[in-house]
Parts: sequence; C-alpha cells; structure tokens
Amino acid sequence: MKKVAILGPGLLGGSIALALHARDGVSVAMWARRAEAAAEVVEKGVAEFASSDLAEVVRDADVVVFCTPVGAMPALARTIAPLIPPGALVTDVGSVKAAVAAELAPIFKGKARFVGSHPMAGSEQAGLDAARAELFVGATCIVTPDADSQTKAVAEVCAFWEMLGCTVARLSPQAHDEAVALVSHFPHLLAASLVEMVAGENAAALALCGPGFRDTTRVASGPPAMWTEILQTNRAAVQKSAEAMIEKLREIITLLGPAAPKHAMHDFLTQAKNRRDSLRRTDR
Amino acid sequence: MKKVAILGPGLLGGSIALALHARDGVSVAMWARRAEAAAEVVEKGVAEFASSDLAEVVRDADVVVFCTPVGAMPALARTIAPLIPPGALVTDVGSVKAAVAAELAPIFKGKARFVGSHPMAGSEQAGLDAARAELFVGATCIVTPDADSQTKAVAEVCAFWEMLGCTVARLSPQAHDEAVALVSHFPHLLAASLVEMVAGENAAALALCGPGFRDTTRVASGPPAMWTEILQTNRAAVQKSAEAMIEKLREIITLLGPAAPKHAMHDFLTQAKNRRDSLRRTDR
Repeated sequence: MKKVAILGPGLLGGSIALALHARDGVSVAMWARRAEAAAEVVEKGVAEFASSDLAEVVRDADVVVFCTPVGAMPALARTIAPLIPPGALVTDVGSVKAAVAAELAPIFKGKARFVGSHPMAGSEQAGLDAARAELFVGATCIVTPDADSQTKAVAEVCAFWEMLGCTVARLSPQAHDEAVALVSHFPHLLAASLVEMVAGENAAALALCGPGFRDTTRVASGPPAMWTEILQTNRAAVQKSAEAMIEKLREIITLLGPAAPKHAMHDFLTQAKNRRDSLRRTDR
Repeated sequence: MKKVAILGPGLLGGSIALALHARDGVSVAMWARRAEAAAEVVEKGVAEFASSDLAEVVRDADVVVFCTPVGAMPALARTIAPLIPPGALVTDVGSVKAAVAAELAPIFKGKARFVGSHPMAGSEQAGLDAARAELFVGATCIVTPDADSQTKAVAEVCAFWEMLGCTVARLSPQAHDEAVALVSHFPHLLAASLVEMVAGENAAALALCGPGFRDTTRVASGPPAMWTEILQTNRAAVQKSAEAMIEKLREIITLLGPAAPKHAMHDFLTQAKNRRDSLRRTDR
C-alpha cells in the first residue's frame, strides 16, 4: 500500500486520513467536491494532498475508499473506474451494503477489486472537525464480500481496517443490511421517534429530562440527509425491525398490567441488563 | 440548616452527603440498613457519621432526606416521625411522586414538613462507589408540592437542591409522574425492549453494535429491582407512553413506505434533530 485515495472529507474520510497519516511510506490523497473543502483538509493537516480534481486524487492509488453519501458513489465510481490503476483495491464506508455492492461491483468488474465495508464507528457529529485518528480503535468493521469477491481482495480490505484498529466481521451485503437495521438504522429512527413522541404528548416534559434521556436520544442529532438516505435504502429491513419493536412494546404493556406475575417485569429487566452489560466494550 | 439526616447510602444519598461535606456548619448523618454499609460510609469519607440506628441518625436533624427505594419509605417514615424535631423539613428522592406523597404526607402531618423531590440525576451505575459531589450540578430537580404543602417548606426544599447545583422545577406529584414517565420511566423500558427485540430477531447482531447502540441502550444496565418498583408504581402513565410510542412507530412505518412523499422522512428527522439539539445541556 503506497497511496490511499479517500473520496469525501467527512467524519469517516477525515478519520481514515488522520489514522494513516503517521504511517511510513503511505501517502494519502483526499477528494472533496468543493475546492474550499479540499483546501481545508490540507490546512488542518488531515492529509498532505487534497483536491476537487478526481483524476489527480486517484492517479496511482492502490487503495481507494469511498467516504461520500451512498447516493453519490455510483457517479464517482463511473468516473474513476478508467482512471485508477488496474487491480486497485476499492472499498467504501457506506452504512448500507447490498445496494452499494449492486451498483459499484459491476462498474469495477475487470478493472479494480471492489469489496464493501462498514466501520461501526462515528457519532452524531458529522464533518471534518469531528474526525480523529483513533475513531476506529476498538470498533467493529463489517466487511461484506459477495459471491464474486476475490479472496485476496477480501483479506486485503480486512487487513486495512485491522491496521486502523478495527475488529473485522465478515457478512454478505444482505446479512449486513438485516443485522445493521437492528443495531443501527432502526435504533436511530427509534431515538428520533422517542423525541417526537414526547414532544407530541407533553413538550414541556423535554425540559425536565436527565442524562439517561439524553443518552437514549443522542443519535437523533445525526445528520438528517444522510440518515434519510440510509433508511430509505434499507427500508424493508428497517420496517421489519419497527414491526418487531411494536410487538415487543405490546408484550411490555402486558407485563405492566396487574394480571402479570409480580416477578415478570423484574425477569425482563434483568435479562435486558445482562445482555446490555455483555456488549463488547469499544472505544468511541 | 445544621444537621442533615440522609436515609440510604446509595448513589443519590452518597452524592448528597459528598456535596454537603464541604459546607461549614452543616453536619451529615447517614442511615444504612446494614451496620457494615454504615461503616463503609464513614470509611470512605462520604459522611462524618453513619449508623444503622435510625434514632441516632435523625436525632436533632432539621433536614431529613429519604434516599431508599420508594417501597421502603413508609415504614421508615412511621419510625422516624416521633423521633425527629417538630417542624423538621423532610423530602425524598424517589422517582415516583404521587404514591410517595400519598404515603408520607399523612405520616408527617402535624409533626414535620414534608415536600417530595426528584433530582433528574444518576446513571446506570448504582451504589456508594458511583456517588460524587458534582452529581447534581446542572441537573434538573423536580420539587413536587401538593395542596397541603407549606409555601415556606417548598421554598426551603427548592433552596436545598439549588445549593447542590440543581435547577429546580415545580410540578404537582401527578404532573411529575406523567412527565417523568415520558422522559425517564418509559425510555428505560424502551432501551431494555430494544436490547430484547434485537436479541430475539438476531442475537448475533448485538456483537456488531457501535457506539450509537451502546448509548441508546445504556440505561438498560440500571438496577432491575429499583426499576421494577418504579415502573409498577407508575404503571398507568408508562403504559400510556408505550401506547403513544406504538402509534409513533406506526407513523414511521408509513413514512418508510414507497407511497410517502420523498421529503417526509427528512422533515421528520430534521424536526427530531432540532428538538434533540435544544435539550438543555447538563452535567452528568
């Protein structure tokens, strides 16, 4: 790995650049849509080279990482496919994987080696100013090979994320989308829904909230445009999660009823606590 | 205020003791059910005096703060009512207020001046080891006078919490229980339900979760016995919140559907983000 081209100077692109910065023999080039954003990348010391000229950024890159919104990826992919060195390793950090793989894999077929990724890192903050070199340390990165992926390319993408500090899990793009709907996409919508439910029932109650409510709803502060795209792209799996949550809330209402055995709520909360306590601790 | 008696050496009781510790002319006495727990309070420097002997702890106390589980309060109240100085100020930190007021106010009537409180501080951690003097700084404390409360007693309880760093809000016990069901009791159950929903749909997905899911579910690590008592005591309001959440999730499922206007989800997330961003920031 000699030159890594990062397309998109947001939280994830910026954090990858910062994490690679200190590595001997690796140069980082960042593409930004706007020239001013590219200038900011260099000014802030996030990457040694940044430009709004795609051809300049991807020239001679042996690794290309898409860090733009998923909707912007296909057009960029078509532009760079003839420009990057044959056999270059291409990955992306999109939060949905089946749709991205369906679009990008055919574009790079016979030209570069594409394997999708999704590092489970980030925060409700967005943009370059929130980027930091340690963002990936301890995070899980899901690498999503499909039937056409080359074994060696998959291993190289896994090694890339491990180098940044991730623990890698491998799932098919479809299995990724179903699992991540449950632990990320739907929970985002649930946090937003909780805020809106409280506002609808008793807006004054929001002013009384404590640290628990703030944590439970923190992700609802994430960027709406990005999340709208993610939710609409993975709509079927997110709807399924919402239906399962409605079922769970119906069980809860029954558990709260006077007819439920006295210990049932205690058992339910104990089981949830044990599961929550055993979630792998990772750095943010 | 010369002597404050704190009943219960948990997170809240311990934090009140620590916050009062540095004040000139105020002595703190802590009651613990077990003698070993009382010894630990003194050993750890949380309070200068601690004992499992209620009479010793409340003797000459001009302020008494109940920091035990709400179920333990009535029996303690009956024991101390004849022991405390006439006119002493009595409050509690229970997370439900109507039931506590209904039990405690008649016990102290004509003997001491009872006004309930609920500081919206704490964490999923419990116990003396999690206690800290700054716990209340920046937190909201809801003081809950009822029709019988003396104006002067209410003002004194408010001043007590302000001295510890709280911003005080006043609500009737019933209004408290309805508002806090929305921003605390139901969100706790929602976090636990999310963990259990995911575990039921795809337990392996839990291992993939990122910092967002950990924050959203953090409160589910709270003590099950305490939360069971809170939820069962405030059951009607919590059930109402759960029903409202089911309604909100039904709206969400519609918003995700292909028939929804393209911008509708974006509008929904933007509104939730704006509301979430405007929550008063407080220290934990």
